[in-house]
Amino acid sequence: MLGFNRRKVYNFLMQRIKLVIEYNGQKFCGWQRQKLGRSVQGEIESALSKLLQQQTLIVGSSRTDAGVHAFGQVAHFDYEGNIKPENFSKALNSLLPDDIKIVSSSKVKNTFNARFDVKKKTYLYYLSRCEKNALFKGLVAGISYILDENKMKECLNLFLGRHNFKGFCASGAQVENFEREIYEAKLFKKNNFFVFKFTGNGFMQHMVRILVGTCVDVGRGKLNLEDVKEALKFGDRAKAGKTMPASGLYLKKIYY
Amino acid sequence: MLGFNRRKVYNFLMQRIKLVIEYNGQKFCGWQRQKLGRSVQGEIESALSKLLQQQTLIVGSSRTDAGVHAFGQVAHFDYEGNIKPENFSKALNSLLPDDIKIVSSSKVKNTFNARFDVKKKTYLYYLSRCEKNALFKGLVAGISYILDENKMKECLNLFLGRHNFKGFCASGAQVENFEREIYEAKLFKKNNFFVFKFTGNGFMQHMVRILVGTCVDVGRGKLNLEDVKEALKFGDRAKAGKTMPASGLYLKKIYY
Repeated sequence: MLGFNRRKVYNFLMQRIKLVIEYNGQKFCGWQRQKLGRSVQGEIESALSKLLQQQTLIVGSSRTDAGVHAFGQVAHFDYEGNIKPENFSKALNSLLPDDIKIVSSSKVKNTFNARFDVKKKTYLYYLSRCEKNALFKGLVAGISYILDENKMKECLNLFLGRHNFKGFCASGAQVENFEREIYEAKLFKKNNFFVFKFTGNGFMQHMVRILVGTCVDVGRGKLNLEDVKEALKFGDRAKAGKTMPASGLYLKKIYY
Repeated sequence: MLGFNRRKVYNFLMQRIKLVIEYNGQKFCGWQRQKLGRSVQGEIESALSKLLQQQTLIVGSSRTDAGVHAFGQVAHFDYEGNIKPENFSKALNSLLPDDIKIVSSSKVKNTFNARFDVKKKTYLYYLSRCEKNALFKGLVAGISYILDENKMKECLNLFLGRHNFKGFCASGAQVENFEREIYEAKLFKKNNFFVFKFTGNGFMQHMVRILVGTCVDVGRGKLNLEDVKEALKFGDRAKAGKTMPASGLYLKKIYY
């Protein structure tokens, strides 16, 4: 009986805080906390635990890989105290290293879950049309081949809709269901860059990088559209394109 | 007589090569070769000397400061041998570190001088409207003040034309004539950034950074346009704005 009441009191005082997070992935082993290695989650948890003077864990939306960047990663944590929800961003930024920034912090419903409530996600991929990039090394990927833009756009159209993307994810991906729906798969030029934009209900490990790699292989004539259709139909990784480097990938936005 | 002939032969075989150079200034003490410290010029001269197996010096157009970036720095050097002028870019890129890229190499007239033949230069300045930038740290400057865009544009208009810019350069600038002409002074928004663009017949040390700092001080209401007019009229450094950080500055293009 006492336990039940305690829980009620706890729920009453507890606030769930949502963080929107920007980071430069170059010097991280990825989002997820690791025993060894510098992770974005680990850095934020350290700062938060220091701020709140007790160990505090966060739940992130997407486990981005080493070298992948984010404009809008999302995480949540629970908190009891007097700090105003919107003040966490400033307080954490003063404790965080230069390559992580809390863009915003806000109170959300206690049932909100950064990982399980995701409706859709948008990723961008920046591909420079030169192999070497002195200015933006680590922030873009580069390719020296001449790419057929129209062919790449035809390839992107094949990805739209609901498909089994087994042929388009890391071989070790630990998932039971490979079906995902892609709502948006676009390509546009921006100065000397190709920018790919994907919005979907979910993306498996390496999936965006393989989707882009498949477009690139189609654009340079190494694969044709029939190969891509087969990769989608039979889940055949060998018929899809190569995995592009992490450096060009940005988690742009998460929709709830 | 022999000496004269030798010189003729030398001039006949000698080719002058022009390099267009991109670099990320974050890890350099600046363009200019230093006894200590990693300079862009020094790195290129090392690579070139290695390639040609003899000490080879280059003449650069602009001595950019530590932390300043370039899309289109220009340098020249003299060379006798069988390497095709356009192949120097690839050969040098394979020897240069990641943060320097030779964009192009070409043969120019033997009278061409990268430093003294400049007709005009364009600089860009990237100013983020947030103070902290996790993604583009070192590649932009950030400011948290709210800036009045129209006021900044009025300020930019004051810089157009021929003026004595004594109030707008580093106090230690070693120049005899402070007069410069500015042909273009623009401001545009790009996502979450203000981008300043200046084209002029020359810029003294820190000049672009002080021009931008003056706009910023006007934009936030710390200076007014009359102050700027006085700074231009009397060469009064105290009436001009602060020197902005090097991180936002890009040498965009040099015109000959």
